[in-house]
Amino acid sequence: MAPPSSSSSSHRPLLILILISVLLASTGPAYFFADGLELELELGGHGGSLLYREILRDETVLRLKELGKISDGEGYLERTFLSPASIRATNVIINWMKDAGLTTWVDQMGNIHGRFEPANSTKEALLFGSHMDTVIDAGMYDGSLGIISAISALKVLKVTGKLQRLTRPVEVIAFSDEEGVRFQTTFLGSAAVAVQDVLKLNSFEATAAALTQARYSPESVGSYVEVHMEQGPVLEALRYPLGVVKGIAGQTRLKVIVDGSQGHAGTVPMKLRRDPMVAAAGLVVTLESLCKDPNKFLTYDEECECFTEESVAGLVCTVGELLTWPSASNVIPGQVNFTVDIRAMDDKVRETIVTSFSRLVLQKCDDRLVDCTVEHKHSAPATPCDPELTSQLKRAAVSTVSSLSPAAAGGTTPVLMSGAGHDAMAMARLTKVGMLFVRCRGGVSHSPEESVEDDDVWAAGLALLNFMEQNVVAEHSAAVLPELS
Amino acid sequence: MAPPSSSSSSHRPLLILILISVLLASTGPAYFFADGLELELELGGHGGSLLYREILRDETVLRLKELGKISDGEGYLERTFLSPASIRATNVIINWMKDAGLTTWVDQMGNIHGRFEPANSTKEALLFGSHMDTVIDAGMYDGSLGIISAISALKVLKVTGKLQRLTRPVEVIAFSDEEGVRFQTTFLGSAAVAVQDVLKLNSFEATAAALTQARYSPESVGSYVEVHMEQGPVLEALRYPLGVVKGIAGQTRLKVIVDGSQGHAGTVPMKLRRDPMVAAAGLVVTLESLCKDPNKFLTYDEECECFTEESVAGLVCTVGELLTWPSASNVIPGQVNFTVDIRAMDDKVRETIVTSFSRLVLQKCDDRLVDCTVEHKHSAPATPCDPELTSQLKRAAVSTVSSLSPAAAGGTTPVLMSGAGHDAMAMARLTKVGMLFVRCRGGVSHSPEESVEDDDVWAAGLALLNFMEQNVVAEHSAAVLPELS
Repeated sequence: MAPPSSSSSSHRPLLILILISVLLASTGPAYFFADGLELELELGGHGGSLLYREILRDETVLRLKELGKISDGEGYLERTFLSPASIRATNVIINWMKDAGLTTWVDQMGNIHGRFEPANSTKEALLFGSHMDTVIDAGMYDGSLGIISAISALKVLKVTGKLQRLTRPVEVIAFSDEEGVRFQTTFLGSAAVAVQDVLKLNSFEATAAALTQARYSPESVGSYVEVHMEQGPVLEALRYPLGVVKGIAGQTRLKVIVDGSQGHAGTVPMKLRRDPMVAAAGLVVTLESLCKDPNKFLTYDEECECFTEESVAGLVCTVGELLTWPSASNVIPGQVNFTVDIRAMDDKVRETIVTSFSRLVLQKCDDRLVDCTVEHKHSAPATPCDPELTSQLKRAAVSTVSSLSPAAAGGTTPVLMSGAGHDAMAMARLTKVGMLFVRCRGGVSHSPEESVEDDDVWAAGLALLNFMEQNVVAEHSAAVLPELS
Repeated sequence: MAPPSSSSSSHRPLLILILISVLLASTGPAYFFADGLELELELGGHGGSLLYREILRDETVLRLKELGKISDGEGYLERTFLSPASIRATNVIINWMKDAGLTTWVDQMGNIHGRFEPANSTKEALLFGSHMDTVIDAGMYDGSLGIISAISALKVLKVTGKLQRLTRPVEVIAFSDEEGVRFQTTFLGSAAVAVQDVLKLNSFEATAAALTQARYSPESVGSYVEVHMEQGPVLEALRYPLGVVKGIAGQTRLKVIVDGSQGHAGTVPMKLRRDPMVAAAGLVVTLESLCKDPNKFLTYDEECECFTEESVAGLVCTVGELLTWPSASNVIPGQVNFTVDIRAMDDKVRETIVTSFSRLVLQKCDDRLVDCTVEHKHSAPATPCDPELTSQLKRAAVSTVSSLSPAAAGGTTPVLMSGAGHDAMAMARLTKVGMLFVRCRGGVSHSPEESVEDDDVWAAGLALLNFMEQNVVAEHSAAVLPELS
């Protein structure tokens, strides 16, 4: 059961009155959620529209920058699981959550929770979230964007008086560990909330009590929605600010070891060589061809029908590391090994590619008289996003883009596969998940160079707001704020 | 002028008498070079033949092992230019040279000279040699075989009384530096003997006096012959113990730098990638194809006629080093660079290959939208061996193989190109050069695994002896030892 009982009183009239007092006393822009003022807010001092530029764009960007400066490193961003900077970031995020009218707590895995529980609701909660940890020398959008934009959308609901009209509990979670930098294992935070066996598989040492306290029961949760920067170049190429995610790719990691005959670069004729460098290079090229056009490589007894254009659309294959031994310009290497990363939305496609590639490796190594080994290092199935959640997010994105970027509105909201892993992957073991991707510059992430346009930050918050308004905010009625009357 | 005047007296009768006395007093097999005993020696206690197994095989192999143990490293062989082990090796080699009846000295570059100067000879000297330095963790044949087998062949001439019948001065030189391990520049030893500008090019600091003392004048030298292990697999593949070398290949070293777009392995679709890894792999494969079948790649305006089967026979191309950045399995690299080593006997062939490859690099990089740079790091022309010397060595090899390995005698003595550099390359700037290659196991060198069969060591010594007997030993006559009568 979540949230813990100490904060389940967040919907009580007394607390709301206190929150209102705090809000009215604040020195920031005066937001009111009395119905009569809503129109003025929307049409008046906030861009003359329903676009909430000050909160969803300007303040969100400011907060991204502020969080991006909270680092364990000097001059660069590094904020790993439970590090000193993480503790400082936790306090900042808690304040933002409170500012959005949420009740907050930190669980024993370091995850920060901000929740609004509507009066007398017994419905399953709608969770939003992403991760607050970073890689080393990180950018300021990866993870943080999903946390802050969800808080900002809820803040708009608060200032427009719609928070009380929520039809179910809504919660933002800032997960403590997704990148896995500190303990070399990813999703510690979301896995603790979602499912314990993942943590045990990764040999993470936590007390049973801590895990039990952190874990949500599937019955208490209705769905999980995550906003994340794309980390790829597709939206930029399509000139569209938002995309919905149909699923997170399954992944296989291989290591290919090619053993040949080491020799003097000047003395071994081409015809007598057993050169692992040329063999490995050939395999790198073969892998690319296989992933670009799988059907060309299939034999009769492999199931060709699984390679429809759609099924292979998200198939990606990468050789990121290649090592030669002994690595001297005048020596034919004795051994070359390289990594292979294969990802696909369709597990059957991925498995067929792995099988086909392994077969091609052995075939081509035989042809060249070199000895090849294919080691399987890691394998994980794909995580599909919930189709209904995805449709709702798509509608929200369409509505947002038609408001914000009329020029782009003619296009279709792109439906993407996520090749990168996300907290949604762990949360999918607990509940239905949906993801919204935000355009970034050059597909760059895990780098201080990562960049999202301020207007695209705005679009992300607006789409989340739209999604909430359409799906978990009750139609306007006079009875929305009974406690205040 | 060489040798220095202090040792030019080596042909005087007094010295010869002393040498005979020393020899007669020795405890080893009693060799006599009085004519009457020669027949007995050949048909009697030495295998009943002219094959001199004890000196050319057994003692030579023992000496290779002894020299192979003189190391600066413990448990492995390392003997670099002028190191403590080199000094110990120098004393050992000087003793062997003396044992073969040679007058010895060490020049100021550390090269060891052992010379026999026939009475009243004004002819140009015939030089034999190879290098006494080694790489780190070396084998015992590279270099040493050429020094010791030449000493052994001269020792046979001594014990058979033929040394006095030499028609010109004969000298063995153990060069102090060929591998270039200690000062990262090769041929210090032979370059000092042959030509000074090479040393100056390599910024080697030596006094002008030292260089002048070490240098031979071209007029004083008739030719240079070097025996060396093949360091390649050709002779082994042809099942032939000896081969003659038609020349030492010219060499070009390039560095190819491929810049693409670094990205997340999961998030960048195949079609949007600018992957330098796949581009580089394609270029590695292209280089191999180009070297295996150059004519396939030539455009009309390149001179096809230079690619005859013979001209490209020794063409070899190698990628020994390939580096990826940032080198992580889940990151599409941003940059990949690799070395290219191109060697050929025919300089025009090599230059055309370099031009063709550079053109293909730019073409293929354009196709893949990656940015490529080809840097020229080093270039050296080929060194042809002297055709007459090569014919003489070939005749010697044929004669040797028909005596030692009647089974292999039907074959033709292989004519090889040397892809590796040798002292002969530096000596070619001083005089005509010839080289004899000796079969080794698996083409392995620069490794403790390098191996030459004892019988092939024997073949090498016998071929050198045969070469000397046929070319610089006068026909038998009663007047050969006038000084003794």
